[in-house]
Amino acid sequence: MYDGRLANGPSLSGAITVTYCLAFSLNAGLVFASDSRTNAGVDYVTIYRKMRIFTPAEDRLFVVLSSGNLATTQEVINRLQRDLHDQAPQSMLTVNYLFEAARYLGQLSRAVQLDHGEALSQSGISGETSFIVGGQIGEQPQGLYMVYPQGNYVAASTETPYLQLGESKYGKPVVDRIIDANLSLEDAARLALVSMESTSRSNISVGPPFEVALVPRGSFSVMRHLLVKPTSPIFASIKKRWQEGLMSAFKNLPRFDWEH
Amino acid sequence: MYDGRLANGPSLSGAITVTYCLAFSLNAGLVFASDSRTNAGVDYVTIYRKMRIFTPAEDRLFVVLSSGNLATTQEVINRLQRDLHDQAPQSMLTVNYLFEAARYLGQLSRAVQLDHGEALSQSGISGETSFIVGGQIGEQPQGLYMVYPQGNYVAASTETPYLQLGESKYGKPVVDRIIDANLSLEDAARLALVSMESTSRSNISVGPPFEVALVPRGSFSVMRHLLVKPTSPIFASIKKRWQEGLMSAFKNLPRFDWEH
Repeated sequence: MYDGRLANGPSLSGAITVTYCLAFSLNAGLVFASDSRTNAGVDYVTIYRKMRIFTPAEDRLFVVLSSGNLATTQEVINRLQRDLHDQAPQSMLTVNYLFEAARYLGQLSRAVQLDHGEALSQSGISGETSFIVGGQIGEQPQGLYMVYPQGNYVAASTETPYLQLGESKYGKPVVDRIIDANLSLEDAARLALVSMESTSRSNISVGPPFEVALVPRGSFSVMRHLLVKPTSPIFASIKKRWQEGLMSAFKNLPRFDWEH
Repeated sequence: MYDGRLANGPSLSGAITVTYCLAFSLNAGLVFASDSRTNAGVDYVTIYRKMRIFTPAEDRLFVVLSSGNLATTQEVINRLQRDLHDQAPQSMLTVNYLFEAARYLGQLSRAVQLDHGEALSQSGISGETSFIVGGQIGEQPQGLYMVYPQGNYVAASTETPYLQLGESKYGKPVVDRIIDANLSLEDAARLALVSMESTSRSNISVGPPFEVALVPRGSFSVMRHLLVKPTSPIFASIKKRWQEGLMSAFKNLPRFDWEH
C-alpha cells in the first residue's frame, strides 16, 4: 500500500513505465488502450507511447502494449523489428499462431532481461517488463495474450474478456461492472477511457495522452487509432458526462430506514 | 501487481487482515467503515471485525479500525483494554488530545511488534499493523488519524477528508469523485458501502459483513452502528441501484464523431 516512489532522476537506468494498459477481446473485435506516462522517480516524468502496431504482412496484425522497465521494453521492440528486417528464422512474420507470437515476445523479453540482468540486479533494479499482444494471423481466430516477465503467457477468454498491465487496480472495478463480450468496439473504447481516467486521477504516474486502437474481428488493420489528449473534446466530454452520471447514480441511492 | 497469495492455512502466525477500512472526517461528523474478512492464505478465510468502539468516559469516544497482522492487532487492543482496566499512567482515559491517542496506539503497536518481531522475521512474516483512530476528547475538536506500523501518524484534513487502510486502490476512484467535506453522514455511509462493495468484487480477501459507524460532530456516542450483511436489504438495494446508475451513466457517454 505504501509504495512511495523515491526520487531518482533521469540517470536511473530503471525508468519504469508504471503505466496502465488495458485490452478487450470482444465478439466484435479487439480494443487496446494505454497511457503514455513514464517515470524514473517522481521528479522525472516523461512521455513514451506504450502501444506498437505491426502489420508485417497483409494477413497478419499485431498490437503490442508494454509495462515495466523502459530500457527492456525498447530493446525487445528493437530486436523484434530487427528480426523482421533481417528476415530472421523466427519473427512476427514466421509465427503461425498467436500463441507463438506471445511465446516469441516472451523469449525476446527473457533474452534482454538476461543480457542486462546482472548489472541491473547489482543496482537493485528490476529489468522486468510485461506485454499484452493481440491481433490475428491469417485464418486463425483473433486473440489476446498477456506475456509475463518470465516469458510465459495467458490468453483472454469469453469469461475474462480483458487483460490489464501495470497500475490495474484503480481502473478495474468499473471494467468489472460493465464488461461484456458483446460490447461494441466503440463502447469498449469508452469504457477503456473511463478506466484510464479513473486511474490517472488516483495515480500520478499514469496519465494522458491515452492511445486507443480498435480492430474489428477479421480485420488485418486498425480501424481507428486515437491519440486522446487531456484537451481532446471527446475526452473532456466523456470525463464530464461520466462524473455527472456517477453523481446522479450516487444521489439516487436508497436511503437508510431512519432517513424516511 | 502479481501479489498472488500463497496458501498457508490456519497455522500461519501471520494471518493477515487484508482488510479494507475507510473513514471520513466531515463537517457533519465522522463515518467509519470496515470489512470483516481475514485470511491466512486463500484457503483459510475467517471473519473478524476490524472496528472497535471505546467510550472510556462520558466525554471521550474513540473508534479504532485496523489492518495488518491479526495477532498484532488483537494484542494491541488487549493491551489498550488492560491499560484502561488497570488505570495505567497512560491509556485512552489519560490522553488529552486526539493526536496523543494516535501516538499511544502507535506506541502499543511498536511494543507488540518488537515483542514478537524476532520470531516473526525468522519466519519471514510481517507483524505490521496499521490503524485508523477517530473520535473526540472533551472540548477538543473531533479528529481522525492514521497510525502507521512505525508508530507515527497523520491526520485527515479538509482537503483530504478521508483515510483508507489495507486494500485501498479498488475503492478509491469512486471516493475521489464524490467525496466532499459537506456530505451528510448518511451520504458518506452510502459512499463507504459503494466503495466497500467495489473492493469486494475485485479482491476476494475483502468481504462482507461490513461495519459502518456514524458519529455526529460533538457527540460522544455512535449515532448508528450498522452491521451490513450481503443479505441486508439496504446493501442489496444500494448494490443494485449503483450498478443500474453506472450502466445508465455508461450508456449516456458521448459518441465518437464517426458514430454519428
